[in-house]
Amino acid sequence: MDTTTLITLLKEGNTRAAARLITIVENNIKDSEMIIKSIYKDTGKAYILGITGAPGAGKSTFISTLTKKFVNQGKKVGIICVDPTSPLTGGALLGDRIRMKDNFSLENVFIRSMANRGQLGGLARATEDVIKILDVYGCDIIIVETVGVGQSEIDIFRSAHTVIVLLVPGTGDDIQAIKAGLMEITDIFAVNKMDLPGADRKVADIIQMLELNTNFRYESDNPNARNFKLQEWVPEIIKVNSITGKNFVELSNIIQKHEHFLRKNGVFHSYMINRIKAETMQILKHKIVKKIEGLLNSNKFIEDHESQVLDKSLDPYSMADLIIKMVGLDQKK
Amino acid sequence: MDTTTLITLLKEGNTRAAARLITIVENNIKDSEMIIKSIYKDTGKAYILGITGAPGAGKSTFISTLTKKFVNQGKKVGIICVDPTSPLTGGALLGDRIRMKDNFSLENVFIRSMANRGQLGGLARATEDVIKILDVYGCDIIIVETVGVGQSEIDIFRSAHTVIVLLVPGTGDDIQAIKAGLMEITDIFAVNKMDLPGADRKVADIIQMLELNTNFRYESDNPNARNFKLQEWVPEIIKVNSITGKNFVELSNIIQKHEHFLRKNGVFHSYMINRIKAETMQILKHKIVKKIEGLLNSNKFIEDHESQVLDKSLDPYSMADLIIKMVGLDQKK
Repeated sequence: MDTTTLITLLKEGNTRAAARLITIVENNIKDSEMIIKSIYKDTGKAYILGITGAPGAGKSTFISTLTKKFVNQGKKVGIICVDPTSPLTGGALLGDRIRMKDNFSLENVFIRSMANRGQLGGLARATEDVIKILDVYGCDIIIVETVGVGQSEIDIFRSAHTVIVLLVPGTGDDIQAIKAGLMEITDIFAVNKMDLPGADRKVADIIQMLELNTNFRYESDNPNARNFKLQEWVPEIIKVNSITGKNFVELSNIIQKHEHFLRKNGVFHSYMINRIKAETMQILKHKIVKKIEGLLNSNKFIEDHESQVLDKSLDPYSMADLIIKMVGLDQKK
Repeated sequence: MDTTTLITLLKEGNTRAAARLITIVENNIKDSEMIIKSIYKDTGKAYILGITGAPGAGKSTFISTLTKKFVNQGKKVGIICVDPTSPLTGGALLGDRIRMKDNFSLENVFIRSMANRGQLGGLARATEDVIKILDVYGCDIIIVETVGVGQSEIDIFRSAHTVIVLLVPGTGDDIQAIKAGLMEITDIFAVNKMDLPGADRKVADIIQMLELNTNFRYESDNPNARNFKLQEWVPEIIKVNSITGKNFVELSNIIQKHEHFLRKNGVFHSYMINRIKAETMQILKHKIVKKIEGLLNSNKFIEDHESQVLDKSLDPYSMADLIIKMVGLDQKK
């Protein structure tokens, strides 16, 4: 079946077309471009949740329970599980997914695992595209789950409307592991396994961490940093039990509250602008890098200068300047 | 003290000047550029070892023991500990470093921890620059240690002459964790804690993994993939005990053997060319992205088109194309 037919079927909510198109955007940025160009008009309906947490936090059960809640509200849910640490296999994650799948009928929930095929930037880009496909497919909610708490999550969560970080009572290693960049984009902290000893202590630890860090990178010029957050949204903290489902009504209310917050006062709008900038930048980087890689590999000018760098009559920074000059980028303002 | 004076002192082997300059290149790409431009001519003397392994593999002790061996041979050793998962703290790693420091006199060993300040690309770039500073400072051997086994290691190890992956007898989780991209650039597998049960089994597992994957991404066009490796160098496997120092003479011989391999038959040369390409690309990316970010933030043209993307009359891929056209990159061949 050709891509155009698949796109038509996707817009009708065809599950197999969605799956096929996702495989295409994962593997091929050229087709990806064509697909996104043709569906972009129809995107923007889904609400996107980013969920992460340290290994062992119970993410799978948490997401299962949350998804059931959404499905019971009549919503169609897409789940994208991203493993940035795994370039190819992502075995453990896939196992989780299969277990998760058992809980749902296929009509209401679409689950997809993505592992890192190549560069991190590539994975974040592919995730953006998969989100768009699931959006057009008809998902009301798209959950993007990642396995860690590092820099790659921050890139991948760029498009999430609400970011939830899952923690568990215990050692505090998980709080240690929350990096500044991730903390900065977290909207809700959920303490899972709330019936274990130490849940209240964990809540206190989170409060302390937030207090220690409110001024932190406050005026960051990082496009990923949603600066308005720390000014206008104080991250909520909630204890839950994913197995019994305790406090999931409250959690779902907090998510709604955050959505309302985003939509009022133009925050949603400025967030969308940031997202577009970041996404365009991502695509631009890819395109320009490809372009320049082509130049580096084929151009005689470059080859000559490479040997100059090799014999140390030129350094890599000056070589970069020469290339920028060669492509005329030095004259742009 | 100004940067020029620091550079003069660095070339004389002044330790404090090295430390100060490293802090500068870590924090500021502008000064970094100036520094690297002025020292580049004097680089290229050090032999660079990349060492990684799963947490718990005993990297600190392994590196300590290996470093002692080098120091006893009269060599000056630089150790750069890179933690790509930690944007700011890198606490645990630093603890290890402090313990490691006790083992050495300061004249022969220079130890530095680097955590991820910002983007991964930035960290790899900064690591390249720190390597150059330690090279000019007079290190004969520079050990670059990273804490994980993922994509970021692959970027950071780009400049390593010999890459060693440390494993331990046991579950096999560490082998599972070795990603295809990392395996591809590994020259030596060291099985640490060789006296534990299962060391031979681990060796057998590594052999099996290598056999399963020889054809894997064999003709990759990834500049990080040292294609010649799988053709010409069969990764060596050695069991060691870092505490007793057993087999470290053999390990050191294998490293030398690998250095000889690199130097003969032009492999060293083609490797250097790849490294220069990759490094120039990294710097170019940074410079071009900065340039385009500037355009995106200041340009009226861009602002207008952003709102078009927002109201969905334009998509991000087409917007990227427009910007490439605007800066004239579309006409370059």
